[in-house]
Amino acid sequence: MTSIVEDYQIVEVQAIAAKKAAKKISILNTNEKNEALNVVADELVKQLAFILEANEKDLQNGKASGFEKAFMDRLTLNESRIKDFAEGLRVVAELPDPVGDVLSNWTLENGLRVETIRVPLGVIGMIYEARPNVTVDATGLALKSGNAIILKGGSSAIHSNMSIIEVMHKALEKTAIPKEAVQFISSTDRNATKQLFTMKEHIDVLIPRGGGSLIQTVVENATVPVLETGVGNCHLYVDKEADLKKALDIIVNAKTDRPAVCNAAETLIIHQEFLAKYKLELAQTLAANGILIHGDEMACKELPGVIPATEKDWAEEYLSLEIAVKIVNSLDEAIEHIDRYGTKHSEAIITENQHTARKFMQLTDAAALYHNASTRFTDGGALGFGAEIGISTQKLHARGPMGLPALTTVKYMMSGNGQIR
Amino acid sequence: MTSIVEDYQIVEVQAIAAKKAAKKISILNTNEKNEALNVVADELVKQLAFILEANEKDLQNGKASGFEKAFMDRLTLNESRIKDFAEGLRVVAELPDPVGDVLSNWTLENGLRVETIRVPLGVIGMIYEARPNVTVDATGLALKSGNAIILKGGSSAIHSNMSIIEVMHKALEKTAIPKEAVQFISSTDRNATKQLFTMKEHIDVLIPRGGGSLIQTVVENATVPVLETGVGNCHLYVDKEADLKKALDIIVNAKTDRPAVCNAAETLIIHQEFLAKYKLELAQTLAANGILIHGDEMACKELPGVIPATEKDWAEEYLSLEIAVKIVNSLDEAIEHIDRYGTKHSEAIITENQHTARKFMQLTDAAALYHNASTRFTDGGALGFGAEIGISTQKLHARGPMGLPALTTVKYMMSGNGQIR
Repeated sequence: MTSIVEDYQIVEVQAIAAKKAAKKISILNTNEKNEALNVVADELVKQLAFILEANEKDLQNGKASGFEKAFMDRLTLNESRIKDFAEGLRVVAELPDPVGDVLSNWTLENGLRVETIRVPLGVIGMIYEARPNVTVDATGLALKSGNAIILKGGSSAIHSNMSIIEVMHKALEKTAIPKEAVQFISSTDRNATKQLFTMKEHIDVLIPRGGGSLIQTVVENATVPVLETGVGNCHLYVDKEADLKKALDIIVNAKTDRPAVCNAAETLIIHQEFLAKYKLELAQTLAANGILIHGDEMACKELPGVIPATEKDWAEEYLSLEIAVKIVNSLDEAIEHIDRYGTKHSEAIITENQHTARKFMQLTDAAALYHNASTRFTDGGALGFGAEIGISTQKLHARGPMGLPALTTVKYMMSGNGQIR
Repeated sequence: MTSIVEDYQIVEVQAIAAKKAAKKISILNTNEKNEALNVVADELVKQLAFILEANEKDLQNGKASGFEKAFMDRLTLNESRIKDFAEGLRVVAELPDPVGDVLSNWTLENGLRVETIRVPLGVIGMIYEARPNVTVDATGLALKSGNAIILKGGSSAIHSNMSIIEVMHKALEKTAIPKEAVQFISSTDRNATKQLFTMKEHIDVLIPRGGGSLIQTVVENATVPVLETGVGNCHLYVDKEADLKKALDIIVNAKTDRPAVCNAAETLIIHQEFLAKYKLELAQTLAANGILIHGDEMACKELPGVIPATEKDWAEEYLSLEIAVKIVNSLDEAIEHIDRYGTKHSEAIITENQHTARKFMQLTDAAALYHNASTRFTDGGALGFGAEIGISTQKLHARGPMGLPALTTVKYMMSGNGQIR
């Protein structure tokens, strides 16, 4: 007799197992968790060949499907990348454990003692695309913060991910963390994924990581709370009182350092007085760095080689060496444009006027505001968090780069001797 | 020519106006906001008669519709209740302003200065039922924390609410807060309300306050982030090592002090060793306080006058002098029951064993855990917050009673002199 089990039933069984494991890991001490992460790190390095063999299958399938170069690059593992995964886990093991932190405590007049304590969220559902590194990174952060995790990676990386999971499970068997705390959805059926969206009983938060359409699908369909991450239509506003060198340095860095990441600049807003003074230098610098300009009417008139921008350009996350350029007459006009098209990720002003800078930073609604610096710093690593699970573009719970504390919540713990109201 | 405007269009116009006003109020200083709240308080007292007249219409309509007594009571205003509203605003004016608080700051090696600063959420959408006091309370908390608010009250209180809004708007005209920061949806068409659910561009968070079905409707249909409040299926677990007096005092208080509120107890879980010792005292106390028992098989056998509990009773928020009683053999069984039926609000253990208490508080997943105290303390007022916008039963953003900081988010503010990566 063969039993016929639908994918969505398997997903539910996995979610229930994760919830149960979450309770066990929630009360482990820091050493037990750190030790487990180091054991997993060791095992990943030991099983290098096994993982690379699996990755080869994904790469062959990817080639056969004609995936583009950048995609194939993200999918590709090698010895050094896997060693980096392991090193990442060791770094997370070294980070302070947020669980158990007493955030505040006081005693009521009646003697009731109140403490607010950081506790794990419970079960984290991670939905992501091609990069197999997320499988390891997200697991490390979830386990360190005392959570179980359910991973749903992109189908193009299925063999790589399953081999990594197999290695991690084998390692966890030697540790205090139950291997059930790490669940991987191996079904590539979309209905299995959708099950995760509504499993409020078993899953505490969903974190989508990937392109805008993946994130939107999760936000619009999930009843499980979502931590929205990543889409960054970031603006640089070059004020009339901007310093030319700072402006050019920041434009080049924010656009070209890593064009494909979410903290790269996508739109340049220029005060027309700055443009009038420095259009030659600006045009030269953009051209020298191979940046293609989509501009508004005035940009087309004043700068060479500009493609007229359409409405779509203002909202576009190019993720390549293209930039939209808008010319404005005032700070207010710049802020209005950002309000309309920004994704509340990172926005920068370049100006020598402190008052203007302050007004921009107060009135612009985004996770990270910059004065005379590149938007590229919106990153857990760059800001010294050690590691990040993603960059939140929402306002609730966590905003901006999310380190370990973003994977926790609080409990009020009240101790009394019979207090009543 | 008459223009035909659909309700949902009015709602959108209101939401856009709120968003614009939110920007203005976000940069007011604390004194300006406090002064405005006091002006509104004064005006509410001055316009007592006007508000009571409007309330009379709602009461007459309510009577004609045959609303039950408790509902009519919540709807009824009088001189002293309106003075309480005003006093509530004055209390909020005295509370510390969370906006502008620097939560952390550090400087990167390259000299980039990083600050995380508390800022208002923006626009808060409040969806609530009969009580007109929410109209004033929520407005006071939203404005003090620098937010605009869109209010959608229950249709049974429409005249009371509209008169209160008229008075508050008139008062705000004399202050630094634009009256557009307070929007009231006067349409009683459900489609107008539903518009609020998806206005992500204009509304930053929805807070439903009221019964479970209202909250579920919002949670399931909104794409705007929701702060889930209020439903409390709270349990008292009386351990085998519980002190009799503490147990009885807490049971009576948690069940009868205010049965209709969310932090009242709904289920009593009793260790069978405690039951065996103290069943007489327990039965007498419950009977003397007029508490109706729905019990499991053993409770029916051991206690007099028990109605057999059905599956529904374990999940029921009675909000009256009824309680479900379950007998267990162990702490683990108690925790399992709470995991299955609890709403993650407030859960209490009564025991003299510190180890058992600690295990209960660690392993039970809820916003507030009590050892030897009544669940009735889960309340912003009782805990010393001054005022609360609701009690969060979710884990993200804010958990438990929510004071002013729950209506804020953070911004990363980076100041540099040309730093690039």
